[in-house]
Amino acid sequence: MEFFKTLTLPQVLAHLTDSGITAAHFETVSLLDALGRIAASDCLAPEDMPMFDRSTVDGYAIIGRESAGASEAIPGFFQLAGESLMGEAIEQQLQSGQAVYVPTGGMLPPGADAMVMIEFTEKMDHETLLVYKPSPPGAHISYRGDDVRKGDIVVAAGRRIDSYDIGMLAGAGYDTVCVYRKPKVAVISTGDEVRPVGEPITFGQIYDVNGYTISARLLELGCDVVEKALVSDNYEMLRETVETSLAKADIVILSGGSSVGTRDFTARVIESFEGGRLITHGIAIKPGKPTIVGKIDDKFIIGLPGHPASALIIFNAVVKPLIYQLMPHAPTPFVIEALLSENVHASPGKDTFQMVQLYREGSSWHCKPIYAKSGMMSLLATASGYIHMTNEKEGLSAGTAVDVYLLQEVRL
Amino acid sequence: MEFFKTLTLPQVLAHLTDSGITAAHFETVSLLDALGRIAASDCLAPEDMPMFDRSTVDGYAIIGRESAGASEAIPGFFQLAGESLMGEAIEQQLQSGQAVYVPTGGMLPPGADAMVMIEFTEKMDHETLLVYKPSPPGAHISYRGDDVRKGDIVVAAGRRIDSYDIGMLAGAGYDTVCVYRKPKVAVISTGDEVRPVGEPITFGQIYDVNGYTISARLLELGCDVVEKALVSDNYEMLRETVETSLAKADIVILSGGSSVGTRDFTARVIESFEGGRLITHGIAIKPGKPTIVGKIDDKFIIGLPGHPASALIIFNAVVKPLIYQLMPHAPTPFVIEALLSENVHASPGKDTFQMVQLYREGSSWHCKPIYAKSGMMSLLATASGYIHMTNEKEGLSAGTAVDVYLLQEVRL
Repeated sequence: MEFFKTLTLPQVLAHLTDSGITAAHFETVSLLDALGRIAASDCLAPEDMPMFDRSTVDGYAIIGRESAGASEAIPGFFQLAGESLMGEAIEQQLQSGQAVYVPTGGMLPPGADAMVMIEFTEKMDHETLLVYKPSPPGAHISYRGDDVRKGDIVVAAGRRIDSYDIGMLAGAGYDTVCVYRKPKVAVISTGDEVRPVGEPITFGQIYDVNGYTISARLLELGCDVVEKALVSDNYEMLRETVETSLAKADIVILSGGSSVGTRDFTARVIESFEGGRLITHGIAIKPGKPTIVGKIDDKFIIGLPGHPASALIIFNAVVKPLIYQLMPHAPTPFVIEALLSENVHASPGKDTFQMVQLYREGSSWHCKPIYAKSGMMSLLATASGYIHMTNEKEGLSAGTAVDVYLLQEVRL
Repeated sequence: MEFFKTLTLPQVLAHLTDSGITAAHFETVSLLDALGRIAASDCLAPEDMPMFDRSTVDGYAIIGRESAGASEAIPGFFQLAGESLMGEAIEQQLQSGQAVYVPTGGMLPPGADAMVMIEFTEKMDHETLLVYKPSPPGAHISYRGDDVRKGDIVVAAGRRIDSYDIGMLAGAGYDTVCVYRKPKVAVISTGDEVRPVGEPITFGQIYDVNGYTISARLLELGCDVVEKALVSDNYEMLRETVETSLAKADIVILSGGSSVGTRDFTARVIESFEGGRLITHGIAIKPGKPTIVGKIDDKFIIGLPGHPASALIIFNAVVKPLIYQLMPHAPTPFVIEALLSENVHASPGKDTFQMVQLYREGSSWHCKPIYAKSGMMSLLATASGYIHMTNEKEGLSAGTAVDVYLLQEVRL
């Protein structure tokens, strides 16, 4: 038997980090198109927000201390002195004893320092307003810069822009946003037994599960899938497809059979290129050992294991961090503490990932390990996340509180 | 003062549910385009998966009991009888004493009932295999139908299809998927003070925050934003824009100033249409009271409050359930238990929503209420979710374990 160079997961990740791979280029997109993209630079507020002292209610702007002591029995008397129109600046100085109507969101006249809600007022005649309740200085006012100060960061570089961020950017007046270009990834499925979906298959064949799962996962992370190919276990064809892919992609992902033969093809193809070198032929990780990481010049080629569940674990553990280097952002993995429903075994000396299904009982989360024979897809349909046992641990017993990493990205 | 018809949140939701609104039509899209869409019908497995008994290792297919007692010292002897090729059916019947090479994922020959891993074998010569370890019947085999049985549901109607579901569908051979048509929604921002992003503004004016936040939120939920308009507080222009929108949208969302005047425009516009009627003019909810729900024939018109945070709370509480009726699916809201960092007050008699920010301390989640004056956007940037106090409660004290509903959808 041939002995392969095998690295641990931290060693592989160190290779990715030290690789000198730099972020992809920037591009400027219109505000709504920035949804889901990664901000490439800090977006600053060009002005204070709000830009002016505004009312948070429908009512009258007054000098607050002049309403002191006002009550139903003994109302305060104010002189009606016009109104502040929505969308317009008001320059008229409020004089002592005056009240100016201001709708919600409207600008306060200079000199006013409080709003009295319309509910607590009554017009005695065209010139006189009765105020039935005191409004202390500052009441119902949102001051200039209260929300965001000029120069504050509205959306920080590296943030995945969601609908709530779009709102912040709109508030600051951005109509375009500078985001990282989408990393371009090629996905190549290999295997004589692998057939394209939509065609009939016969005994001995399977459909191209990994090609689709990995492509969909890439789209979810915000990548461009620039190539999606399916080649049989033929060295020349595989090499040719990798060559074409290298010309247009930042990363090439191969996923194929897990048999030794298939893996050898991948390794040979990588080494056949000038500037091609194998970084690892196997990772000390369970599941996912038969993973190949190589580089051709400055581009990474990752050979994922053939089993769909293993391929996805490696995708999340290795490919995702690589993508995050091309469009730098550091999402906090969403971790939830849950109680193990049964004992779980780990493989000493390996990073062990165990898929689990989360369920809630009363107010606590519980998790149930999901076991499946190698190659089963149905694992994908039922798993909500995984627990990660580092090589110190031999296993965990039922009832232990464990950290469950969700399979999908969550905003906090 | 005019008194408005005000409903509670449950009453409004009952209106939406009883509205007789039916699901939008179906459409068939290619597999990768189904990512993020809602399955409109159950997708069944057309065949058993795997379709055949397959090996989960590289090794030799044998009759398991014939390896009983094999050891390093006293290996079992088997007659090498060919190999099973990847992607091809093998019809050759395995005879007693024979061993057939099968790669990972390859089909077992009829008659074989166990796989012995290649690591525990040695070829003595071209005809004879030594087996150093017993492989009991069933060892390292994934049986036909082990993963999914013919007719099983692979992806159920109403599921939001994610990358993992795409994998399941690919495994079952689907190249197209029947999904709900995207609900068409028109978003109209109103207000004399509201200006489009990208243009300079002056004192008294603000940018169109809600138009963008709501549009982005709709895109996140999988809707088509068929109209995004901004109109000033002009009855005729608003009515005209609503009329145009009704012609192309399933739902019309207005968001505007929170002043009484602006709300009146919306109510008047709804009632001006033949078949137009106001369902509620205000909801007993905090924040978000100045919400208008109306209907023109069979289409809902929702007038959201002007404050961005209130608009989003109402969007999640009212508009989202409505969208879920057009493309029926019932995502479980992702709830996490967290300890309140400080006392929170509720408004008796109202459904009270309090925005909070989640943070993890040790292994527990904590949440900190976020307070902001009305109209502040920065609330959007910092909130991770909200707690929902029903009208029974008067408030909650620090240290209480509360359910936090995340602002974004999470797959479990």
